[in-house]
Amino acid sequence: MLHPQYDVIVVGGGHAGAEAAAASGRMGCSTLLISLNLNAIAQMSCNPAIGGVAKGQLVREIDALGGIMGAVADSSGVQFRMLNRSKGPAMWSPRAQSDRMLYAQHIREKLEEIPTLHMRQDSVVGLLTDSGSVNGVVTQSGQHIPGKAVILTNGTFLNGLIHIGEKNFGGGRSGERASVGITENLEQLGFESGRLKTGTPPRLDGRTIDFEKLEIQYGDDEPTPFSYLTKSIPDKDKQLTCWIAYTTPAVHEVLKSGFDRSPMFNGRITSTGPRYCPSIEDKINRFAERDRHQLFVEPEGWNTYEIYLNGFSTSLPEDTQYQALRTIPGFEEVVMIRPGYAIEYDYFPPHQINRSMETKLLSSLYFAGQINGTTGYEEAASQGLMAGINAARKIQGKEEIVLKRSEAYIGVLIDDLVNKGTEEPYRMFTSRAEHRILLRQDNADLRLTPLSRDIGLATETRINDFARKETEISKLKEFLSDYSVRPEKFNLLLEHKQQAPLKQSQKLPKLITRPHLGLNELFDHDPELTEGVFSITKNPLVIEQVEIQFKYEGYIQKEHEMVRQISEKENMSIPESIDYSKIQSLSSEGRQKLQKVLPETIGQAGRISGVSASDIAVLMVYLNH
Amino acid sequence: MLHPQYDVIVVGGGHAGAEAAAASGRMGCSTLLISLNLNAIAQMSCNPAIGGVAKGQLVREIDALGGIMGAVADSSGVQFRMLNRSKGPAMWSPRAQSDRMLYAQHIREKLEEIPTLHMRQDSVVGLLTDSGSVNGVVTQSGQHIPGKAVILTNGTFLNGLIHIGEKNFGGGRSGERASVGITENLEQLGFESGRLKTGTPPRLDGRTIDFEKLEIQYGDDEPTPFSYLTKSIPDKDKQLTCWIAYTTPAVHEVLKSGFDRSPMFNGRITSTGPRYCPSIEDKINRFAERDRHQLFVEPEGWNTYEIYLNGFSTSLPEDTQYQALRTIPGFEEVVMIRPGYAIEYDYFPPHQINRSMETKLLSSLYFAGQINGTTGYEEAASQGLMAGINAARKIQGKEEIVLKRSEAYIGVLIDDLVNKGTEEPYRMFTSRAEHRILLRQDNADLRLTPLSRDIGLATETRINDFARKETEISKLKEFLSDYSVRPEKFNLLLEHKQQAPLKQSQKLPKLITRPHLGLNELFDHDPELTEGVFSITKNPLVIEQVEIQFKYEGYIQKEHEMVRQISEKENMSIPESIDYSKIQSLSSEGRQKLQKVLPETIGQAGRISGVSASDIAVLMVYLNH
Ligand SMILES: Cc1cc2nc3c(=O)[nH]c(=O)nc-3n(C[C@H](O)[C@H](O)[C@H](O)COP(=O)(O)OP(=O)(O)OC[C@H]3O[C@@H](n4cnc5c(N)ncnc54)[C@H](O)[C@@H]3O)c2cc1C
Ligand SMILES: Cc1cc2nc3c(=O)[nH]c(=O)nc-3n(C[C@H](O)[C@H](O)[C@H](O)COP(=O)(O)OP(=O)(O)OC[C@H]3O[C@@H](n4cnc5c(N)ncnc54)[C@H](O)[C@@H]3O)c2cc1C
Repeated sequence: MLHPQYDVIVVGGGHAGAEAAAASGRMGCSTLLISLNLNAIAQMSCNPAIGGVAKGQLVREIDALGGIMGAVADSSGVQFRMLNRSKGPAMWSPRAQSDRMLYAQHIREKLEEIPTLHMRQDSVVGLLTDSGSVNGVVTQSGQHIPGKAVILTNGTFLNGLIHIGEKNFGGGRSGERASVGITENLEQLGFESGRLKTGTPPRLDGRTIDFEKLEIQYGDDEPTPFSYLTKSIPDKDKQLTCWIAYTTPAVHEVLKSGFDRSPMFNGRITSTGPRYCPSIEDKINRFAERDRHQLFVEPEGWNTYEIYLNGFSTSLPEDTQYQALRTIPGFEEVVMIRPGYAIEYDYFPPHQINRSMETKLLSSLYFAGQINGTTGYEEAASQGLMAGINAARKIQGKEEIVLKRSEAYIGVLIDDLVNKGTEEPYRMFTSRAEHRILLRQDNADLRLTPLSRDIGLATETRINDFARKETEISKLKEFLSDYSVRPEKFNLLLEHKQQAPLKQSQKLPKLITRPHLGLNELFDHDPELTEGVFSITKNPLVIEQVEIQFKYEGYIQKEHEMVRQISEKENMSIPESIDYSKIQSLSSEGRQKLQKVLPETIGQAGRISGVSASDIAVLMVYLNH
Repeated sequence: MLHPQYDVIVVGGGHAGAEAAAASGRMGCSTLLISLNLNAIAQMSCNPAIGGVAKGQLVREIDALGGIMGAVADSSGVQFRMLNRSKGPAMWSPRAQSDRMLYAQHIREKLEEIPTLHMRQDSVVGLLTDSGSVNGVVTQSGQHIPGKAVILTNGTFLNGLIHIGEKNFGGGRSGERASVGITENLEQLGFESGRLKTGTPPRLDGRTIDFEKLEIQYGDDEPTPFSYLTKSIPDKDKQLTCWIAYTTPAVHEVLKSGFDRSPMFNGRITSTGPRYCPSIEDKINRFAERDRHQLFVEPEGWNTYEIYLNGFSTSLPEDTQYQALRTIPGFEEVVMIRPGYAIEYDYFPPHQINRSMETKLLSSLYFAGQINGTTGYEEAASQGLMAGINAARKIQGKEEIVLKRSEAYIGVLIDDLVNKGTEEPYRMFTSRAEHRILLRQDNADLRLTPLSRDIGLATETRINDFARKETEISKLKEFLSDYSVRPEKFNLLLEHKQQAPLKQSQKLPKLITRPHLGLNELFDHDPELTEGVFSITKNPLVIEQVEIQFKYEGYIQKEHEMVRQISEKENMSIPESIDYSKIQSLSSEGRQKLQKVLPETIGQAGRISGVSASDIAVLMVYLNH
């Protein structure tokens, strides 16, 4: 036979597809990854960066589960920053600026390391099905390739249409062609499709920017890797700088002059864009009162002058883009390398999939990534990973893996998609996770690596490193819980920090709950403590972990309690007499929706689109009084 | 104004476009390079290799003139070989296997180093013209970009149509879309277009090949760089190996079984392909008597298992490709990553351009590369370089540069194109160059670097290195011409080499004309000689150069004389009574054409398509008797 029957066929080599193929392949399934262009695997369509608020947490989770995104973000990063370091640890979010070319190259190299994974350059134009189940794909080159499961990760390519001002033309992203056939085929099979849009800013010639006029932004001195397997970031001392620029009222005036020719405002684009990555025209339209917007000026790699202008996504006519750019201080002479553009594409509203990522209509067919109405590499990769895991497990006759909302941002993401659907591109935020204090970037391994080990994705090294870390954490907690800190050792430090002195000895965990006081600071003042700690571990991440656990123990306990309650209270009834307008802390959208639907139980309330998990938590607290 | 008026706009970032843009930019012209995808600059559409017979000479010439191909072939090479080393130096041809990704990346980095060069990702759909002159381009995104000169280097993209068996679909090469608009626009402007085709073999998964069954092929221990500026090849000790496989009669049978569905044989493809890079189906069809064909099994890069199967270009249906592949010894289990395919595309028969590469119809419009009906990266780059040079010079009000046939393979290439046209994809061969003994890979710098210096393309380093080399050569020649070799020093060596001993002292140049005797060999036997030589130079290339000049002095002199005669004999008349069938050494195609046209002068004869420059040389010798 021409093609063997593959266990899993992954369609699309973007961020979702790469993780799906890697997971399925590493779990021992014979896997075929088909993509339009094998020289452009895991291309970053938009900003050359991985992570950020809530997204960084996703990447840590992907890594803890045995995915590839984190390690590659580490090896291809040009600048690393831990965002929100001044806030509580639930908000800490790692982010890295990537070398665009290197990122794609390293992902491909990771995929090539997997013996059970094959690749094929081709375009899939339809599915092979047999009595309610998918069993292969049909390609543009005329091949029928059999597969026991198929994962579709077509990204923005399905009937992609690119807009720049009044011009529009087919394309999957700038410079690449669209994919035709799959939408039509799925519709025939009974699927419902929708249309979304997203946009990207212009790319600039860095030689024509006057960086003197911009604010400079350095990377962290001690970058935190995404991957639990990365011991340290290569070239961390050579990190590139980024910059910040600002629009001005004059820039806004120029932008407005193009509105009548903007596909966003003249009715040409009808589909919905990502609310939280708005285009610059959207921003000046919706926030008319603001006289400036921040723009992040980001390098595209080690060896290129190409610059990405984060915050300036636009589909205005190119002359307007150009004039507006040149009105920005520092950009007077700027030359554009690629204009910004918007793209409309087909997606499949995600109520059509289960939380395993399998479609409800066709058995063994999985959707992952932008095709489910999400936006963002990390969101795509998370779904790809879970689809890959579940497709592999189905073939191996094992039960599906569904992460809980209290277990992972990935769980929140998929639960939101499946149960709430999405009418605009869905991106992850910390506010979507009601249990975010549990879902920290620092403990993703503690939450998920045991699972990764059980399903066979964790490598030997990961398992061993993790076991050592777990042991060290528990030993260190034991040691420190019992450790008495004596006033004479630390009162000088406390005084210096303008904190109340100790009156008498107390156990270390108590002291450490004080704000602005870290474990590391104590070491200098107590050699005995230091020696005790270092005899258990030299791993700063272990020390950090224990510190966080001590510091936030109260909150964490309460949150665990909340999780328990919610799962109990699924059937808790809501009195008909309830007056939602009286519940202050509900989101305004949540309140509206609740008022309209008047759900009977907490469970039902939670499944209403627009009612966030935080709204549910608020409601439960209210009902408990 | 939105876009500045550029001096030169280069359309297409392939091998022609990259050289054109680099040359024009380095010569101080403000230059814009527009290409469909800036992540795929100088992509190798077909085999990941640079150089080879006659092509290697082109690369050396490009480098000597200040082009970029040579240096990048050096920095991205994974295996280097000097072909034909056992033949005379006119046949020596450097060839390197390249890392496909690295090659593209390094070319882009070279382009980014040029301050006067800008880049833009877009598709050009038409030209702006004004009274017989081009003055800009129109792009898909609706931009009108003014330029004083435009160089079109669209490669295989113009209305590209890809064929695999009975399937065909639009595309500029696999995974990339075609370019529409330019052909139509040029036709309206009065240009004549034609259609050609070319093909490429499947790419294979190296993990599925049994290399034990193949012949192994190593790189040279001491690789010769392409660029005169490369001091030594990096990682030369880590060079990758290539392999040789063979088809068998069984393979041929399988291939034949697909002929009825082959677009080559069922009439779907009507355009002409490259005679000298035939598809495998062509080969077994045309050379039915041969029971095997050689296949070169070549790695695509340092960090990939992808394999290029040189010699197996095909557009047969994929099932036939697969079955045939699996019948090849060593390929029983092979998995294909991308199927082979053929592509048809528009070209513009090159009688429509002058030898400066400017079109005859529209002033300041230049064509370079595959658009002129050639095939091959080196052929494209050569033309791009000359078009870039001449566009820049025109703008700077300087006279055009036309290389003579006796000066460079590049001269032969362009002269052939312009004067003979081409009805099938044109590729360079040593046999096309009547003065090939002058056009060696070793002396490309001596031939062309003075020109490069004069036109401002040579860098300071190149100029200085070259000046030093020239001086050393002339000093060394002087020294050696006068150096007496004495029998007692060398007769042992000569005896050992089974050559006639010296009876008395003679000058060194005389001795060195003996075959199989190199200068280096003499050093061991004559410390005085060695010391003398090394006091002048330690550069092995200088020593090699002088050796070649001494060894082949007779031939070289004769050739120079021939060149002189030809330029004199342009008007030499041919008697009507001539009987071409009597002239043995004419090529059969040449004889036919001469018989048909019956030219009146040597000059006229030389311009007949199908009459090669060697035919003219033969004819002149005949007439001189
Ligand atoms: C213009 C633009 C702007 C964006 N802006 C933002 C932003 O501001 N913020 C943000 O977070 N995200 C943004 N994104 C989204 C981000 O790029 C995607 O969310 C992410 O890349 C989705 O990953 P994916 O794997 O689902 O799809 P993609 O990365 O799009 O990959 C899809 C892959 O599938 C392949 N493919 C498609 N069809 C076929 C087929 N039929 N056969 C074979 N292969 C096929 C393609 O070649 C490609 O490799 C933007 C995307 C675009 C295009
Ligand atoms: C399938 C295939 C098989 C081949 N087989 C062989 C072989 O066996 N032997 C051999 O020697 N050579 C072969 N070649 C030819 C070799 O690839 C070309 O000769 C060489 O690449 C030509 O260089 P070029 O610069 O002229 O064009 P290309 O390398 O084709 O580059 C053209 C460039 O122009 C850009 N472009 C096109 N249209 C536009 C537009 N309207 N606007 C902006 N940019 C545009 C493209 O994006 C591309 O970057 C093959 C090519 C193909 C596609």
